[in-house]
Amino acid sequence: MNPTTPTGGPVGPSRYALRPLSTAEIWIDGGYWANKQRLNADVILEHCRAWMQRIGWIGNFDRAAAGTIATEHAGIEFVDSEVYKLLEAMAWELDRQASATLEATYLDLVGRVAAAQEPDGYLHTSFGRPGQPARYSDLEWGHELYCFGHLIQAAVARLRTGHDDLLPAVARRLADHLYEAFGPDGRPAVCGHPEIEMALVELGRATGEERYLELARLFVERRGHRTLRQIEFGREYFQDTVPVRDATTLSGHAVRALYLAAGAADVAVETGDAELLEAVRRQEAAARAARTYVTGAVGSHRRDESFGQDFELPPDRAYAETCAGIASAMLNWRLLLSGGSSDHAAAMERVLLNNVLTSPREDGRAFFYANTLHQRVPGTEAGDDQLAGHRAEGGGMRSPWFDVSCCPTNVARTLASVHLYFATASDRGIQLHQYGDYQVRTQVAGGTVHLRVTSGYPYDGALHVEVIEAPESPVALAIRVPEWAGGTAELSGAEAALTDGYLLLDRVLVPGEKISVGFPVEARVIHPDPRIDAVRGTFAVERGPLVLALESVDLPAGWDLNAVTADPSSVRTTSDGAAITVEQHVPGDAAWPYGAEISSAATARVEAALIPYQRWANRGPAAMRVWIPKDRE
Amino acid sequence: MNPTTPTGGPVGPSRYALRPLSTAEIWIDGGYWANKQRLNADVILEHCRAWMQRIGWIGNFDRAAAGTIATEHAGIEFVDSEVYKLLEAMAWELDRQASATLEATYLDLVGRVAAAQEPDGYLHTSFGRPGQPARYSDLEWGHELYCFGHLIQAAVARLRTGHDDLLPAVARRLADHLYEAFGPDGRPAVCGHPEIEMALVELGRATGEERYLELARLFVERRGHRTLRQIEFGREYFQDTVPVRDATTLSGHAVRALYLAAGAADVAVETGDAELLEAVRRQEAAARAARTYVTGAVGSHRRDESFGQDFELPPDRAYAETCAGIASAMLNWRLLLSGGSSDHAAAMERVLLNNVLTSPREDGRAFFYANTLHQRVPGTEAGDDQLAGHRAEGGGMRSPWFDVSCCPTNVARTLASVHLYFATASDRGIQLHQYGDYQVRTQVAGGTVHLRVTSGYPYDGALHVEVIEAPESPVALAIRVPEWAGGTAELSGAEAALTDGYLLLDRVLVPGEKISVGFPVEARVIHPDPRIDAVRGTFAVERGPLVLALESVDLPAGWDLNAVTADPSSVRTTSDGAAITVEQHVPGDAAWPYGAEISSAATARVEAALIPYQRWANRGPAAMRVWIPKDRE
Repeated sequence: MNPTTPTGGPVGPSRYALRPLSTAEIWIDGGYWANKQRLNADVILEHCRAWMQRIGWIGNFDRAAAGTIATEHAGIEFVDSEVYKLLEAMAWELDRQASATLEATYLDLVGRVAAAQEPDGYLHTSFGRPGQPARYSDLEWGHELYCFGHLIQAAVARLRTGHDDLLPAVARRLADHLYEAFGPDGRPAVCGHPEIEMALVELGRATGEERYLELARLFVERRGHRTLRQIEFGREYFQDTVPVRDATTLSGHAVRALYLAAGAADVAVETGDAELLEAVRRQEAAARAARTYVTGAVGSHRRDESFGQDFELPPDRAYAETCAGIASAMLNWRLLLSGGSSDHAAAMERVLLNNVLTSPREDGRAFFYANTLHQRVPGTEAGDDQLAGHRAEGGGMRSPWFDVSCCPTNVARTLASVHLYFATASDRGIQLHQYGDYQVRTQVAGGTVHLRVTSGYPYDGALHVEVIEAPESPVALAIRVPEWAGGTAELSGAEAALTDGYLLLDRVLVPGEKISVGFPVEARVIHPDPRIDAVRGTFAVERGPLVLALESVDLPAGWDLNAVTADPSSVRTTSDGAAITVEQHVPGDAAWPYGAEISSAATARVEAALIPYQRWANRGPAAMRVWIPKDRE
Repeated sequence: MNPTTPTGGPVGPSRYALRPLSTAEIWIDGGYWANKQRLNADVILEHCRAWMQRIGWIGNFDRAAAGTIATEHAGIEFVDSEVYKLLEAMAWELDRQASATLEATYLDLVGRVAAAQEPDGYLHTSFGRPGQPARYSDLEWGHELYCFGHLIQAAVARLRTGHDDLLPAVARRLADHLYEAFGPDGRPAVCGHPEIEMALVELGRATGEERYLELARLFVERRGHRTLRQIEFGREYFQDTVPVRDATTLSGHAVRALYLAAGAADVAVETGDAELLEAVRRQEAAARAARTYVTGAVGSHRRDESFGQDFELPPDRAYAETCAGIASAMLNWRLLLSGGSSDHAAAMERVLLNNVLTSPREDGRAFFYANTLHQRVPGTEAGDDQLAGHRAEGGGMRSPWFDVSCCPTNVARTLASVHLYFATASDRGIQLHQYGDYQVRTQVAGGTVHLRVTSGYPYDGALHVEVIEAPESPVALAIRVPEWAGGTAELSGAEAALTDGYLLLDRVLVPGEKISVGFPVEARVIHPDPRIDAVRGTFAVERGPLVLALESVDLPAGWDLNAVTADPSSVRTTSDGAAITVEQHVPGDAAWPYGAEISSAATARVEAALIPYQRWANRGPAAMRVWIPKDRE
């Protein structure tokens, strides 16, 4: 295994069907996504840092170095991981756009983390020092290896952006320690929260160290053999009842399941284990077909943040955790690179736009942790200074920070690196998977290809690909036709075949030429599989890549969103959403809500706006629903 | 306050609209309910005792007395309460039917409990001794006063069955200690789990001690003022955010909410606090109208065992805890006695037959803790020797015993005393609220009335009231017409007016005469309020007082209960349930379960049995649903 060149962003496989692009090869240069990355750079990164400074999570490292941590640890056991995810976000951001201020902050933070590393490489602020629980004494809930995984991913981001400095050195020492502790001659155990698997594969890829891959493989193979102790939620919660290669779908805690699947895919790709890769593909496909919300989100149970059974997808009890959405994108990216279909790119588009981007408030200072698809009663947002419980009942609205605050830092690292998921290359081709305004400049067989992609995404369906530079030999340019376009793509300035979800132009590209494609973004009525009991008799509306929602602030005063129906045929497209005719029903005043006949007459009718779901709850507390009951006959 | 005569069963108010009958005044003499009480006497009581003996919960008292409990406590903090509920059940059972064996067991158990009482009256095996957490150091989760409440209720059962012996003495000392600790000059605090309130009122009623009522009143008034610490689920979980007299509905943890409401009703009745009583009535009515399952069960959230928001009633995620059903019956009984409408008797019938009695398996050796209304995938019953987690995911089927095992002992005490809820008396009348085979013999203004009630309940709608003894003056006999009869009651041998849900015969009753009433028990199609999103487009079927269910074992082999629809008009009544024509739909094999069109053709049609919901899961693992999707047009 040789170290790969700085390529591939968060994922840099040595074998692939589609080659991920490095940070030098793709960048966003305007539009929708540039705004998101600017919000991240200007607000979210510092928001995360300031909160963690204020409530002592960063200071934990200083106290660990000083030896006072045992009595002064701030936060729950795994808050180290939030600092690491922030470091990962900063590493991507520093590469995206130089900033002396951010670099100084970054280097200071890394120095404080490094100072807490113990001589044998172990590095955790909650375990192992006198007065603390022993190392690895609580693999079920301690999250030690989970934290290490995030440290390693942050180090990989630093390597992939061209810096082999302090954090990668810390990560190597930590990984070497782990190999001793859990490798072939170590303890045959796994961590309750998968994450270390994919991190170790990436560190192996980025450093050429085979042992890291070997250890990742061991962690994947050991899982499912009930080595973790029983817990209240059962061992299915941490995927320890069925070996990865035998599982038929994704189950248990959603983030754990998806991180594990992503790590297993990485191991499968690097070891050439086709059976394991196929198992992961099968699981992802099964979960997509029966355990995924229309927003691409997953997690049907709030109780244990887990997948439900097939077709158990209650919109009002959706956990749909932001981190699970990010994890889904991470898994689908791996399956796409390793030769999967355009379905994976479609899944990424859906979950990024409709689940992940729903999390941050428009000002970047508050976040959804869970992302309900139906809010019956307007919730209460936490105040700007208020630390929220991540499992708060009765709303679960956006909050500035949480006791378990995995989502904000996960959003930050995702936004800082999101362009790296937009396109790939192959021997003689370029594949455009996601849209926005960005440029790709990379090498294919015949030479350099440089393209500028512009669009009105996600609101407008016009897409333009301008050729800035191209070799004289033919290039295979693949332009994904979103699944929601239903195969409709109006191509001007070029001819192309539609193959496996992509328009394929295989010809000489001429610098200066512009290929334009139009996808229909008219509002579409969407029906659920009848087995999804929780949304029977309802419909949703999508427009382009966006799932829309009906928010109570768009209803006349006094209307009850819970007593509204609508006629699907009344949907009409608007500039950034849709409009629909809704009926208000006067609820009967029954003492008992069941009976031979339930009367409720429609009393009023009005046209109401449907807004992109990702933008809901930005206009004050509101009720909201994605699935709208159909008018009663 | 004078001690009341042994009257009233579990509830013996000194003021009432309807007078509860004592154990000497009403008894079951055959039929459906006799079978249930026999199962309880022969199997359930000993099942509970043997489990608690085996796993050390009874032994906790011996170890507490011996001073070794700090290092040897078995089970969670509040297992004392299970022993007390069993003692309560035994007390009622000993009165119902003498048994030297049971009496010896009972007295032995009481002796062991009494031996653990500390000199100042405190009695808890988890707190207060050297090496244990301090008394009252964890009011949020410690359940100390909750346990005391159950001890006191067990003592009241002993008093009400005519024995002022050891357990009542223990209870008095404990209550005196509590008055010191939490009374007007004590700590102004409440327990995280209400229960002590109604227990203290009853002990006050049974002993004439005013201080117990005063303390109960203080506990009710203190609640809702946020004296309990914040917890993960929020203070709404233990009803500490809104004072009882200000709350408009029931919310938070369902059992806590209902026990509190019952205690508040008791306090209101004894203190003549009409405002407080009205507040409880309002809350119960609001919860019944919008937060109650068709089975009478409550508790929509598994996460925190709590009420959901209005109309949030997912059948597949129903917690519908057996104890909450029992608590609902306890509350409705209080509201009925204090002058409420027949709605409360109807609510009791529904919840007892369709929620509480669903819990015990037909052999009495396993119990549902949660009572789902929709089981998608057949669950796994715990083995006979297996201690189950009470919050187990992926099934939640009946288990012999639980880590938190409140439900089996609660079923036991309810079955042993259930006859006491069947009828009431007033100055010159008798009111028959529930049906079965039983006798009532009590005093009214003119003299003794002795009636024998027989019926084929719950399967047959014929009811016979035979007059065995009656005074020469008129008696006001009220026979409840169940709400499901829709006002239809065929009376033979008498004439009566239908008043507030009761057939009222106000005339001289002649010994030997037989009054017969027929209620229609034909299967009825039931529709849900359209605001209950989770069951839109479905219907349920009821037959007499029973909610029916479709169980997968009644479908042809290979059929998927999740892909079945039915035509409501095809329902026909059978001897103990109904039959209905169901269609099997072939699920599409879609990679994504949402789209412009979802096709699934009906491929087969068959008539299937609908069985009483209370009897489901007695024929091996099965899927089940109460709400059946309507055939698609």
